[in-house]
Amino acid sequence: MGLIGLGVMGQNLALNFNDHNFTLAVYNREKEYTDDFMSGAAKDRSITACYSHKELVAQLETPRKIMLMITAGDPVDSTIDALLPLLDEGDIIIDGGNSHFPDTIRRTQSLKEKGILFVGSGISGGEEGARFGPAIMPGGNPAAWPTVKNILQSIAAKVDGEPCCQWIGDGGAGHYVKMVHNGIEYGDMQLIAEAYQLMHEGLGLDHAQMQQVFETWNEGVLSSYLIEITADIMAKADSDGEPLLEKILDTAGQKGTGTWTAVSALEQGVPLTLIGEAVFARCLSSIKESRITASKIYPQAERPKFTGDIEATLDALRDALYASKIISYAQGFMLMQQASDKYGWNLNYGNIALTWRGGCIIRSRFLDNIKEAYKKKPQLENLLLDDFFVDAIQSSLEGWRKTVQTAIAMAIPVPAFSSALSFFDGYRSEKTSANMLQAQRDYFGAHTYERVDQPRGEFFHTDWVKS
Amino acid sequence: MGLIGLGVMGQNLALNFNDHNFTLAVYNREKEYTDDFMSGAAKDRSITACYSHKELVAQLETPRKIMLMITAGDPVDSTIDALLPLLDEGDIIIDGGNSHFPDTIRRTQSLKEKGILFVGSGISGGEEGARFGPAIMPGGNPAAWPTVKNILQSIAAKVDGEPCCQWIGDGGAGHYVKMVHNGIEYGDMQLIAEAYQLMHEGLGLDHAQMQQVFETWNEGVLSSYLIEITADIMAKADSDGEPLLEKILDTAGQKGTGTWTAVSALEQGVPLTLIGEAVFARCLSSIKESRITASKIYPQAERPKFTGDIEATLDALRDALYASKIISYAQGFMLMQQASDKYGWNLNYGNIALTWRGGCIIRSRFLDNIKEAYKKKPQLENLLLDDFFVDAIQSSLEGWRKTVQTAIAMAIPVPAFSSALSFFDGYRSEKTSANMLQAQRDYFGAHTYERVDQPRGEFFHTDWVKS
Repeated sequence: MGLIGLGVMGQNLALNFNDHNFTLAVYNREKEYTDDFMSGAAKDRSITACYSHKELVAQLETPRKIMLMITAGDPVDSTIDALLPLLDEGDIIIDGGNSHFPDTIRRTQSLKEKGILFVGSGISGGEEGARFGPAIMPGGNPAAWPTVKNILQSIAAKVDGEPCCQWIGDGGAGHYVKMVHNGIEYGDMQLIAEAYQLMHEGLGLDHAQMQQVFETWNEGVLSSYLIEITADIMAKADSDGEPLLEKILDTAGQKGTGTWTAVSALEQGVPLTLIGEAVFARCLSSIKESRITASKIYPQAERPKFTGDIEATLDALRDALYASKIISYAQGFMLMQQASDKYGWNLNYGNIALTWRGGCIIRSRFLDNIKEAYKKKPQLENLLLDDFFVDAIQSSLEGWRKTVQTAIAMAIPVPAFSSALSFFDGYRSEKTSANMLQAQRDYFGAHTYERVDQPRGEFFHTDWVKS
Repeated sequence: MGLIGLGVMGQNLALNFNDHNFTLAVYNREKEYTDDFMSGAAKDRSITACYSHKELVAQLETPRKIMLMITAGDPVDSTIDALLPLLDEGDIIIDGGNSHFPDTIRRTQSLKEKGILFVGSGISGGEEGARFGPAIMPGGNPAAWPTVKNILQSIAAKVDGEPCCQWIGDGGAGHYVKMVHNGIEYGDMQLIAEAYQLMHEGLGLDHAQMQQVFETWNEGVLSSYLIEITADIMAKADSDGEPLLEKILDTAGQKGTGTWTAVSALEQGVPLTLIGEAVFARCLSSIKESRITASKIYPQAERPKFTGDIEATLDALRDALYASKIISYAQGFMLMQQASDKYGWNLNYGNIALTWRGGCIIRSRFLDNIKEAYKKKPQLENLLLDDFFVDAIQSSLEGWRKTVQTAIAMAIPVPAFSSALSFFDGYRSEKTSANMLQAQRDYFGAHTYERVDQPRGEFFHTDWVKS
């Protein structure tokens, strides 16, 4: 097994492979990283340092298996170009970085033509996951799977004995699913952030109380890694004993995979509203100077002390978080279904949920329910039509609606909660207001419209001005 | 003047040019269009039919001015390629279609290298505007402007004697601004559609009553073309005497310039939430079959007859529509500011508002206020910080908030109204909830954070697990 790129993720994956009895040859462009690794964590392990691509390739038995853990983009192409003359037909290259899926589609195809099997694999779980068991989403050339299956599954996280690593699909499928995973992560994080603000600024809870709430939530339907670490975050004190959370600047970056996910949804016409709002919320957070100016021009009235029933309001908030999360995943799976059709990936949604159940940032109890839903009905049209989720939404609806109203009344921005509710109220409507859009488009641009009392595909135009 | 492409827009522009004493040579790839035009609307006018590019070019005096009114994309490139060998240095090509701005950037540059002046010009106003005065947004090679200024301004709409046609900027600036115009159009239409659904399904107004409301609104701050045609739409009866609007299928397309606008916002990190929701609302409308299924699984309770004060609720709704519209334009101008910086266009926002005041679909009284705001302060950081709009928002805020709450209580989806309100409540907040996102990112990915009590640009990392 060869591994190129000894950043933190690369080093940890190397150690993980080695723990599972794989002998490794490793290479890094900057020699110092390699030396540090060899004299540090890799000491006394069956890991061989190499100082050129040639040396690395010479260490490997055919079919060679080389994993790239390097920066996405041009570096992947240039490394592939450097390796190509050194490889033999049937050798395998695995790109474990956050590559953009169109690049992976292109690389899979172009390497196939050269006899090299390319695997583009999303890997999630951060440093910790890489070291002890990440979620792995491999796609690319399916001819590589029999060879790499055991290798990748052995280092992946396990839940109930099943590895969080299943073949996702041809070409860019693995990196696409990883991209959507990251978009969903944006959504989950935004929902928790909105819940935090409502609890803290709206209900006046302190950090010990909020820690308690998140710990309680982590024992129920919301049980998940992100809820768990949020409880830890609430507990963390700064050096002065005050909650560290409040010392952190409220500006978040927005570039990367969350943005790609929303762009892909727009390009495919899938209403991925919650993740879209989550990405935009980060954009808004980043213009801090402008917000400070605006806060002086539009001062908030002092929020009155909350006098309602705290317990009931927290229950409603939990329901809002749960229901909104269901909407976000439903939208994410809608997007993957559309992409699967478009790119011919034949995605297995149950396997995707299984892959996400452990190791990765969005791991949760909830993903078991998604896996079950797709196991019962692999061609399920929409998660929101599965019995389990119908019950979950129905029983959360009242609290969800109440939570959004409470937040709006208190001027606490809840773009993700409210956009999820708008989506639900639209999705469950046989009739939307889009007949108005069609009338307007026909009025000013003669775009024509279909009629409710005529078959689909027949188009009508009206001269609206003459009454 | 030469004109290529005799679709409805091309024909109407040709007649408009001719009304303003320009002699035209016209060409269309399909001969029949040309013949029909010549024997129809162009009869007895100083318009010459040509049946090849060569013939067309031969008719024109140098520097030649050729306008393309053809389908955006490859046809523009192939037509340019066909014209190039026939043209002389200093000749001008004007692309009047809905080209994507990166194509216009590329074409301006590559034609400049060949000595040809390229103008990429957005044109808005539909068939009617093209015929009698559209809004025109020219950009591209500024060396062309002195020559084409009089030509384009003469056929443009006029408001208070000023032509709705001003030079927008270099390269792709004209098509970019037209793209944002179209995105804003999506937003305006969605807001009206949401208002319609709330009035009709929520308040129980009939179409005569709604017509009256829109007519009244058209006399106030909302006065605009889209409000005006909405009143006409309410008045239009089908052949059976029933309102035609209710016979129109509620599915709207979502491809095109609205999508490009939202994608550009994501790519540049600008929180364009309202237009994003408007695009996604069209996507949701288009999955009608799935919505029908969902409507049976999640049946709406019968909406109780509205018993509140109708007049007060309509006033609140007007305020919600006005305030949300202000948010949408503020977001649109934020996007153009960011793009102007990124692409070096040096956009003049007052001129853009002036251009949109007449001729185009989003023309409104409101655009005068935007023009005034930028006239007072060309470097205005955000529309929401201008005195006029501060007053407008402050006096609308209560009704806006109430409207969103009413709609949520009645389960009427108002994604645009509520996303605008969330944006406002976030924008006017010195502190958002993004400190939670940063804490989480640092926890699971060691992404580091900035602190409120330390200078910007200093990054900190915490080992969160050890308490």
